[in-house]
Amino acid sequence: METTYRSIFKWGDKREEKLEKGVVELIKEQFDYIDADFDKKVLYGDREVRLEQKSKIPAAIRQQFENIAGSENVRWDDYSRATHAFGKFYGDLLNLRKGEIATPPDLVISPRTEKEIEQILHLCQQENIAITPVGSLSSVTRGVETPRGGISLDLTAWFNKVLEVNEVNTSVRVQPGVYGPALEKHLNDRGYTCGHFPQSFEYSTVGGWVAARGAGQASTGYGKIEDLVLALRVVTPAGIIETKDFPATAEAWDLNKIFIGSEGTLGVITSVTLKIRKYRPENTAFASFVFKDFTSATQSMRKIMQAGFGFPHLFRLSDPVETATAFKIKGFDNSLSDRFLKMKGYRPGERCLMFVSIEGDKEYTHLVKKKIKKTARKSGAFYSGEKPVKEWLKQRYESAYLRDPLMDVGIMTDTVETSVTWDNLLNLWTNVRRYLESREKTHVMAHISHVYENGANLYFTFLSPMKPDEEVEDYLQYHKGLIDAIHANGGSLSHHHGIGRALAPWMEKEMGKTAMRLLQAIKDNLDPKGIMNPGNTLGLR
Amino acid sequence: METTYRSIFKWGDKREEKLEKGVVELIKEQFDYIDADFDKKVLYGDREVRLEQKSKIPAAIRQQFENIAGSENVRWDDYSRATHAFGKFYGDLLNLRKGEIATPPDLVISPRTEKEIEQILHLCQQENIAITPVGSLSSVTRGVETPRGGISLDLTAWFNKVLEVNEVNTSVRVQPGVYGPALEKHLNDRGYTCGHFPQSFEYSTVGGWVAARGAGQASTGYGKIEDLVLALRVVTPAGIIETKDFPATAEAWDLNKIFIGSEGTLGVITSVTLKIRKYRPENTAFASFVFKDFTSATQSMRKIMQAGFGFPHLFRLSDPVETATAFKIKGFDNSLSDRFLKMKGYRPGERCLMFVSIEGDKEYTHLVKKKIKKTARKSGAFYSGEKPVKEWLKQRYESAYLRDPLMDVGIMTDTVETSVTWDNLLNLWTNVRRYLESREKTHVMAHISHVYENGANLYFTFLSPMKPDEEVEDYLQYHKGLIDAIHANGGSLSHHHGIGRALAPWMEKEMGKTAMRLLQAIKDNLDPKGIMNPGNTLGLR
Repeated sequence: METTYRSIFKWGDKREEKLEKGVVELIKEQFDYIDADFDKKVLYGDREVRLEQKSKIPAAIRQQFENIAGSENVRWDDYSRATHAFGKFYGDLLNLRKGEIATPPDLVISPRTEKEIEQILHLCQQENIAITPVGSLSSVTRGVETPRGGISLDLTAWFNKVLEVNEVNTSVRVQPGVYGPALEKHLNDRGYTCGHFPQSFEYSTVGGWVAARGAGQASTGYGKIEDLVLALRVVTPAGIIETKDFPATAEAWDLNKIFIGSEGTLGVITSVTLKIRKYRPENTAFASFVFKDFTSATQSMRKIMQAGFGFPHLFRLSDPVETATAFKIKGFDNSLSDRFLKMKGYRPGERCLMFVSIEGDKEYTHLVKKKIKKTARKSGAFYSGEKPVKEWLKQRYESAYLRDPLMDVGIMTDTVETSVTWDNLLNLWTNVRRYLESREKTHVMAHISHVYENGANLYFTFLSPMKPDEEVEDYLQYHKGLIDAIHANGGSLSHHHGIGRALAPWMEKEMGKTAMRLLQAIKDNLDPKGIMNPGNTLGLR
Repeated sequence: METTYRSIFKWGDKREEKLEKGVVELIKEQFDYIDADFDKKVLYGDREVRLEQKSKIPAAIRQQFENIAGSENVRWDDYSRATHAFGKFYGDLLNLRKGEIATPPDLVISPRTEKEIEQILHLCQQENIAITPVGSLSSVTRGVETPRGGISLDLTAWFNKVLEVNEVNTSVRVQPGVYGPALEKHLNDRGYTCGHFPQSFEYSTVGGWVAARGAGQASTGYGKIEDLVLALRVVTPAGIIETKDFPATAEAWDLNKIFIGSEGTLGVITSVTLKIRKYRPENTAFASFVFKDFTSATQSMRKIMQAGFGFPHLFRLSDPVETATAFKIKGFDNSLSDRFLKMKGYRPGERCLMFVSIEGDKEYTHLVKKKIKKTARKSGAFYSGEKPVKEWLKQRYESAYLRDPLMDVGIMTDTVETSVTWDNLLNLWTNVRRYLESREKTHVMAHISHVYENGANLYFTFLSPMKPDEEVEDYLQYHKGLIDAIHANGGSLSHHHGIGRALAPWMEKEMGKTAMRLLQAIKDNLDPKGIMNPGNTLGLR
């Protein structure tokens, strides 16, 4: 088995191995790269993992954990600890590339039963050992690190089962460590879909979706994870809380909503009941449009969401730079179609690409598509057919795997996202773009991918050459300015990535002191010793 | 001004004054009443209000409240205190009819500004005075009483404004004391609707909708109040918490959901931002159906909700007894249509009436109606046209006003509601019905009126002669058995009435000890002295 640092930060997907031609061209053009630059192996991280710090948990206590979970489920070798030291925050990846792991967990434990989780939490409380529940560690906001060491509680080894599909209630009960593809296949085989397809789908788990309050690519139709969760069971240091799968209630306030977004700070989710929907891909309607500019495109999006004829499921809009980038990478520039579009007034650098898909009943998807076409055309859009959406869907998860090959050639790349009301969307887009572009040699793209009646998200992607030898500081400073710009312009700290430790410093400014004291009181009640994912996650003690 | 007890428990609506002919016939038939029984004036409550207990708040402190809110906004006369002693729980109405007001508030204060509310809470904390924020006191679960006396904080006098309609975001920001009709008119005049029409609509306020986690008659399409609230501002004893109107976020857990359903136990809501939708009554599609039995009707409802062609807004299904009762009261029995239906196999005592309306875009409402018709017919339903729904909508709020005229002639009548998953709905309906019918001379009706992909509510109405001289004890015992039956059969304690003090005794059984400790910790953080609506609301200290 390969046990280099590189083997950790790579997702392990073969799609990560090379940069496609269009991306290479873009980098050359934008950053004055020459061919030789693509042979660089910047911070390649191909050393064997060796941790200086040995596991701090004494053998006698480790033995107690082994007695609980079985010795084969308790690991403290360097490589196991290193693999559980970081999520996928850009700064984490840099640290791994440099072989710098300051605070790895002391033990990685894979519990087999809920009883074992209770016993592990009990022992952690007693010995004041920190514990962080993790799925596949895909957090991009530093949500799964172990600053106090302690235990990384792996839920993917044993808590990875689909427990029950209830076809009458259209719900599924699953364990938290089940991966997206396994859940979706289980459901598809029975004629259902989970409807939740985050960018990390192939390498993330249901527990992570819930803990970080995520959203999938079809969230405009299916909802965010908080709209999909019917019930939860959570083992907290203070005891077990289980909610029921009522379709709705008026039993005081909604406790599900306290655990959704809790990022492991309150307890360990041991089961999740989700809504499911009928899987009928043969009924899905697809549409793509080119708009003359971002303003008319966002107005059209808003009108579609507020029209009262149903929502699309997938609903994406790329801003002019992202649109131009996609056209360039896909070799569309100067094609016959491109020349036709230009002639019609859809000019590069202004035009925007929109993708739509609608799922459900056949007549319904047909009607919604017709209505969307009509609405888009009223705003001057050109209908560009179904094919671009279908092509995009085929590689829908791949852009996440671009990060590592770009870093290999010294390109910093990251994504940050926010949500905003319609009346502030263009303002936020303009000002955050301006901030991002204030850095020299920086390629900035943005899109909208989760749309609501009352506003939408904005998702920014940037590429820029790293500053050699100051990669981390440079990034952190740029990132700080970015979050400051989002916050100052009235965007939320996150729409679906979560807060983790990366955005924690903004939490009090965003929520207010009274709200932060309330969050802390909730944590203190469920986790009185402060052992659950401690060290500033969500801005909590 | 009339200052009798009677003037308090009556809603004050003229529609309360008499029983229509059909209802009189029903009572005669079911309870062996004769004409003379309808001249009774049972517990008529027409005495002048006189409270034995004088206001317990010393004049010096009262003076401080007057200094804050203005002397004209601080009342302590018997009648003002009596009007704020109870909500609309059936037992409350009995107490008022008997002239028994054990724990009236000591003061009724109508604050003019948020600053005044902060000062009032500060003084209450300092002097350990209980305070209960109220709108129009329509709680049917003992949510607005003042068991410790103290202050009833009236928000209808000054906090009754629509602050801003945002047509870009499609949202409205309102003060908590605005009544349903005032809000709806304000919105209709601008081409929008609030989409929230609880049975109490004409005599309830936005703050109450939020505090009690209510639902409106069109909730199947528009959602419950928790689906409509975008942002809140709440003055708590610990400080002000304000959430933002982001369309969605991943900023830790959702604090709106802590205040929605908090029933005045955490603070005073001072502003609410709600989603609004376009008001296009001309597009609304209506449909009614008669099904052969409740089983096929509920299956059809479920199929409609899970079909993926959009949801109706109003979606109601009466069970066989409620259907028969409506047919009788409306004089439909033995009509030509009735005979036709019987001939076709839609038999009285088995057949069920379903009402549907769909709002929004014209082509959309047309499609959804067509789809619903097709689905219903597959389950053997007879399409009975638009008229029954339109007729029902004309008197949609009136059944609430039947309670007092029935009590006047010695009939106990109450409604209790629950929510349940589809796979348990018929079981719960059967067993709770059986319990209710175990009482002699009891007329039991039920309907479904809030429908989801994963289940629905059940709403039970019962009528039964009071037991003279033991009206309260008799009712409370029957009510206790009813909630026990709902709980034992897996229904939620409430779908939309809330918990109050009436259902508080079941909270720990329902939620579990760990969850109740968490609720209490949240309360303790925001309301450390326990002054906000104290005395077991939601089962809290």
